[in-house]
Amino acid sequence: MISEQPPNSLFKEEITQSFASQSVMQLIGAELGLVEPGIVEINLSYRPDLSQQHGYVHAGIITTIVDSACGYAAFTLMPAGSEVLSVEFKVNFLRSARASRFVARGEVIKPGRTLTVVRGDVLGFTEDGKNELIATMLATMMCMRRA
Amino acid sequence: MISEQPPNSLFKEEITQSFASQSVMQLIGAELGLVEPGIVEINLSYRPDLSQQHGYVHAGIITTIVDSACGYAAFTLMPAGSEVLSVEFKVNFLRSARASRFVARGEVIKPGRTLTVVRGDVLGFTEDGKNELIATMLATMMCMRRA
Amino acid sequence: MISEQPPNSLFKEEITQSFASQSVMQLIGAELGLVEPGIVEINLSYRPDLSQQHGYVHAGIITTIVDSACGYAAFTLMPAGSEVLSVEFKVNFLRSARASRFVARGEVIKPGRTLTVVRGDVLGFTEDGKNELIATMLATMMCMRRA
Amino acid sequence: MISEQPPNSLFKEEITQSFASQSVMQLIGAELGLVEPGIVEINLSYRPDLSQQHGYVHAGIITTIVDSACGYAAFTLMPAGSEVLSVEFKVNFLRSARASRFVARGEVIKPGRTLTVVRGDVLGFTEDGKNELIATMLATMMCMRRA
Repeated sequence: MISEQPPNSLFKEEITQSFASQSVMQLIGAELGLVEPGIVEINLSYRPDLSQQHGYVHAGIITTIVDSACGYAAFTLMPAGSEVLSVEFKVNFLRSARASRFVARGEVIKPGRTLTVVRGDVLGFTEDGKNELIATMLATMMCMRRA
Repeated sequence: MISEQPPNSLFKEEITQSFASQSVMQLIGAELGLVEPGIVEINLSYRPDLSQQHGYVHAGIITTIVDSACGYAAFTLMPAGSEVLSVEFKVNFLRSARASRFVARGEVIKPGRTLTVVRGDVLGFTEDGKNELIATMLATMMCMRRA
Repeated sequence: MISEQPPNSLFKEEITQSFASQSVMQLIGAELGLVEPGIVEINLSYRPDLSQQHGYVHAGIITTIVDSACGYAAFTLMPAGSEVLSVEFKVNFLRSARASRFVARGEVIKPGRTLTVVRGDVLGFTEDGKNELIATMLATMMCMRRA
Repeated sequence: MISEQPPNSLFKEEITQSFASQSVMQLIGAELGLVEPGIVEINLSYRPDLSQQHGYVHAGIITTIVDSACGYAAFTLMPAGSEVLSVEFKVNFLRSARASRFVARGEVIKPGRTLTVVRGDVLGFTEDGKNELIATMLATMMCMRRA
């Protein structure tokens, strides 16, 4: 469904560089994973200092990684010289975020010149290798021309 | 609109205690502010390590504080022995989060036995004292009986 | 909060004309109400043929009037020669739509050159004159230049 | 992913009967399609009297069919004696609804005792048989015990 030839041939390098400059990702220990046209993944390991009052990872931290995954997924299909901005998103939390490792995956549903609609899913992996869908996002991302 | 006599007379103490047990709030430096029936505020100061690639506070961190403000606002109107859970939320980001201080305010629109609908707003304050609306949330919170 | 001098001085006439050309509004019996800078209202009377399986007005019909109220509220602040498009919206349904008359009100939260964020509320009025909040919307509207 | 043995063996009959009692579906000409565990489809043909100011089917009517598809999809997995209620939904509109026929499909992402999360898609079919994704919904449905 997604174009094989993304318009910005340097999208992987630019995403890697942009991710490295997001200080908050270092603060929470998130790491960039898969980066393909229309799809980006971000990985996060459980840490007690990311938790809410019941000891699970806070919904806002889950949102932080899936928002970035969705934003970069949109970016993979934007022309060179673009910046991406989160216009809005909705997240449904399906289960408690009680896992040892999380993978947030953003996948473009509909690219556009100005607005791109992206779906995001967060899987939680337990230590015995099982995984469950923790949260799902539907997001609108905007393409801005770099100043 | 909101009942003057919240059903759980200890709601302030319980929220203070619950907030203190949210490790992520210490990680990002958020502080509990106003706690009144139907309304809760959380304060956050700008820190470079909370930022995304353009140096502004990451949308996910803004979401973290307004989600908690909305959750606790719902909790103020729940009976004793309750726990609150984020079912889902939507956030619109209205401006870049370029401010020195943020106040996230959750306000109950419609309390309910099982579900409570809450509106959240995040104001950004600049050093000269001006403020702007940075983000607005519409959230569904669920009341669980404590095990 | 909203500019007193909307950029398109003919906004009322254009909204009246546009509303009249929305065939679906005639089908469901909706009527244009208040039209002011940043605020538009649409009125709807209960009719049995608008109902879902329990006899109340269908959530989709409630959405139809509040989406249009939000779209036109955004339009009031757009320059001449604009068209308005619903990018996305979220609606929370707070109570059963069991009323004899409904007023959907759209109010701009943040106008913008490309995107405008609008809040919508639907009040239900019973025959003894009481009203209740039935639904609340948070919507993103887009400004398109007329071809 | 979805249980092969839905807990209410009469779910098809009950959905058929419930759909027939939704007067608004007759008003707009919508028809019940596929009904399987976790999946329900609703079909709609273009009619000029369903249109907004540009002649395309109104976003609210698109929402009406996909909301019902999502609600019934949730219902297929609920125990006997249940009723389903739309708590909230978000819809992104991806393209103008300029098609001759629409299929709204609701598919359960996560069933639950109280809340069920459902994804909805609306495909538009043109007369030459092509189809495009017009809109996508993320919805929260609630199970109520029948009085």
